[in-house]
Amino acid sequence: MEGTTLGWMQDEVDHFGFNTDKTFKQRYLIADKHWKKDGGSILFYTGNEGDITWFCNNTGFMWDMAEELKAMLVFAEHRYYGESLPFGANSFKDSTHLNFLTSEQALADFAKLIKHLKRTVPGAKNQPVIALGGSYGGMLAAWFRMKYPHMVVGALASSAPIWQFEDLVPCGVFMEIVTADFRKSGPNCSESIRRSWDAIRRLTSTGPGLHWLSEALRLCSPLTNSQDVEHLKDWITETWVNLAMVDYPYESNFLQPLPAWPIKVVCQYLKNPNVSDPQLLENIFQALNVYYNYSGQVKCLNMSETATRSLGSLGWSYQACTEMVMPFCTNGIDDMFEPHSWNLKEFSDDCFKQWGVRPRPSWITTMYGGKNISSHTNIIFSNGDLDPWSGGGVTENVTDTLVAITIPEGAHHLDLRANNAFDPTSVLLARSLEVRYMKQWIKNFYASLRKKH
Amino acid sequence: MEGTTLGWMQDEVDHFGFNTDKTFKQRYLIADKHWKKDGGSILFYTGNEGDITWFCNNTGFMWDMAEELKAMLVFAEHRYYGESLPFGANSFKDSTHLNFLTSEQALADFAKLIKHLKRTVPGAKNQPVIALGGSYGGMLAAWFRMKYPHMVVGALASSAPIWQFEDLVPCGVFMEIVTADFRKSGPNCSESIRRSWDAIRRLTSTGPGLHWLSEALRLCSPLTNSQDVEHLKDWITETWVNLAMVDYPYESNFLQPLPAWPIKVVCQYLKNPNVSDPQLLENIFQALNVYYNYSGQVKCLNMSETATRSLGSLGWSYQACTEMVMPFCTNGIDDMFEPHSWNLKEFSDDCFKQWGVRPRPSWITTMYGGKNISSHTNIIFSNGDLDPWSGGGVTENVTDTLVAITIPEGAHHLDLRANNAFDPTSVLLARSLEVRYMKQWIKNFYASLRKKH
Repeated sequence: MEGTTLGWMQDEVDHFGFNTDKTFKQRYLIADKHWKKDGGSILFYTGNEGDITWFCNNTGFMWDMAEELKAMLVFAEHRYYGESLPFGANSFKDSTHLNFLTSEQALADFAKLIKHLKRTVPGAKNQPVIALGGSYGGMLAAWFRMKYPHMVVGALASSAPIWQFEDLVPCGVFMEIVTADFRKSGPNCSESIRRSWDAIRRLTSTGPGLHWLSEALRLCSPLTNSQDVEHLKDWITETWVNLAMVDYPYESNFLQPLPAWPIKVVCQYLKNPNVSDPQLLENIFQALNVYYNYSGQVKCLNMSETATRSLGSLGWSYQACTEMVMPFCTNGIDDMFEPHSWNLKEFSDDCFKQWGVRPRPSWITTMYGGKNISSHTNIIFSNGDLDPWSGGGVTENVTDTLVAITIPEGAHHLDLRANNAFDPTSVLLARSLEVRYMKQWIKNFYASLRKKH
Repeated sequence: MEGTTLGWMQDEVDHFGFNTDKTFKQRYLIADKHWKKDGGSILFYTGNEGDITWFCNNTGFMWDMAEELKAMLVFAEHRYYGESLPFGANSFKDSTHLNFLTSEQALADFAKLIKHLKRTVPGAKNQPVIALGGSYGGMLAAWFRMKYPHMVVGALASSAPIWQFEDLVPCGVFMEIVTADFRKSGPNCSESIRRSWDAIRRLTSTGPGLHWLSEALRLCSPLTNSQDVEHLKDWITETWVNLAMVDYPYESNFLQPLPAWPIKVVCQYLKNPNVSDPQLLENIFQALNVYYNYSGQVKCLNMSETATRSLGSLGWSYQACTEMVMPFCTNGIDDMFEPHSWNLKEFSDDCFKQWGVRPRPSWITTMYGGKNISSHTNIIFSNGDLDPWSGGGVTENVTDTLVAITIPEGAHHLDLRANNAFDPTSVLLARSLEVRYMKQWIKNFYASLRKKH
């Protein structure tokens, strides 16, 4: 974004052990155009699993409220993502190098960065800091307020599924929301998708069928065996999930360039579930094409990518295999997917194969409290009802100061995006409420500062 | 103590990294004689740098209030102390093996243990847990409530110097309190000690003087060089410090077997500072003898020991060299010691020589908030005015629920000790106030539990 300056902070690779004193360079961005040293504030984006410039460019809300809050904007990059690589090109080499990729280390990085800024930026010392983040970054914002309340006066945790762990919510809720989005976006839409899996199975049971389907879906690499078919189904599944996340009311480019209300566009191709298998898959192709080829420039569909490269899928895969163990399941009845139960043993074995580590599924709730968070204060949990992640989010007030804001027409952290003429009223209301809370935190901060002096 | 049962929990060596899934056995003690499943509570001692049976035997307050609070008592041993050794006999071998000795790992152990007990002890699940600890264990109790408020409804942090870091309090305050204890305990007492350092210097400037002093102090190993003399002065200094810590109003055996008000007894030998150097050092011997030979059975004084072996001095030395960096200094004017400024560079070099690690002096305040702790709740900070550690403690209320209790006649965590006929009124008042807060926390816990159901 315009007027951003780049910063680097030297930080410990391991905050929680002293055997190594190796450091790395953490990247951050600062925009201080509207910042006022007198009565201002610092809005601190707790970076998540991706390049920080990308989050910076997709968090327009912070830019939109900067003037009103006289705020300095800070975007802190999460270690092991973007250019904040503790071991450079070797960072993902093996479990030894990945050992310092945890939420706790990331929160400690943020704490050190805030201390660093308060020490080095004249005028920042006695200003209130507010943590903001979306998705995993929203979890980090909430957890940062919980664990380092001396660093931030409050947090806006947008679309943060802090309860998508262990059995805090049913494992099926995520895919049920995805399904509901498609069900609501066009007649027979979710039913067409539900029937597509069997159609794929039937079509791919023969060699010519495999060939035909590869052509029909314009796949860059043709399907050659049953493993490819499993991969195809996973890829299509992830596509529907991603569409549910970015079902924004206007043309946008978050995970992919997309039209307004993309699921509605997709569903125009999926009106009739009662067609032949080849016809159904032709329709599925048209639907996928909306997501992968809105520009019309794409020559073939590439199953190895589902979203922007700005997301660090490698790092996230490791995190999901260690701390961030989120149980998901489907039953094919309450959702439009093939039934898959949550199998921790299988998941753990896969993790061990890929990364040489085993997940600790109950660690996050031990560390961050699970549903028992009522002693914390000043956290806004916002969720869009269209967003599948809202199923693991906080959607009802926990206390007077741990508040939930729901946005019926909102997908994944719509409230963090820039103001738009096509924004539904619900997100405008959400943002204005969020600003009101933040102003109150800032006001309280200055009031208690005055009391001290 | 009677009626204690021993438990072991298998715990992760590294909670904050996934490269190793090595576990170790953590020891804990449970006493449930007075525990009631209906309306009871769990008092959880957050073990500090020593054998947990020793803390169990020196925390009589928990035993004294067990019946009134219908409480199960749990004493959790701190990793790397007592028998909770992550790498057995190799635990202190080098900085690789010591890498997991941090307060953060210890707090995570406590969290896991509470989860374990709630899962495995029938009736424990829906009971309020209160953290209690003294000294470093008191810091851990306070920090545990700060970082894991979902685990404990409150904490009693007795004699916990959570502010003895960086420049939060003046580095001289600790030794000033030690000095004040001696000044108040007998005429010319602190002045005699102040003059003893020069006397030692003069006496040990010759070979015969070294020999004479070794005899006069009944040292087990005679002094042979100037390094020994430095060691002697450090050892004597630590003796005065320890006496200040355990200046209890009755005969006791915490760091050593001692008479009631031991500093008063010591000061009987130190009434006259205007004597010859040999006479002054004879008097110092008598004073030291009170601390090291109250039993009268000791044949010679051993400079390599200053306190009970139940304390893990090796582990603590490593912790002081990493996280627990406490600046101390003396000026010889406001205190009775030789002037020593706080020299971080020198300290760091010594640490590197001894352990191959360097201290991170500002980490603890980054992690635990320094003086900015007002957003936390339900912590009692109790301090005795005689205790040198009170200088780095919280001795004034921070908020309505972060309260300070001071005990004018109290030494180091006197309130945690068993009820005694010679207890001064101030500690009786402190304990009754502490019980009142704890009962309130328990009551609030059950009230909010009822509201949920």
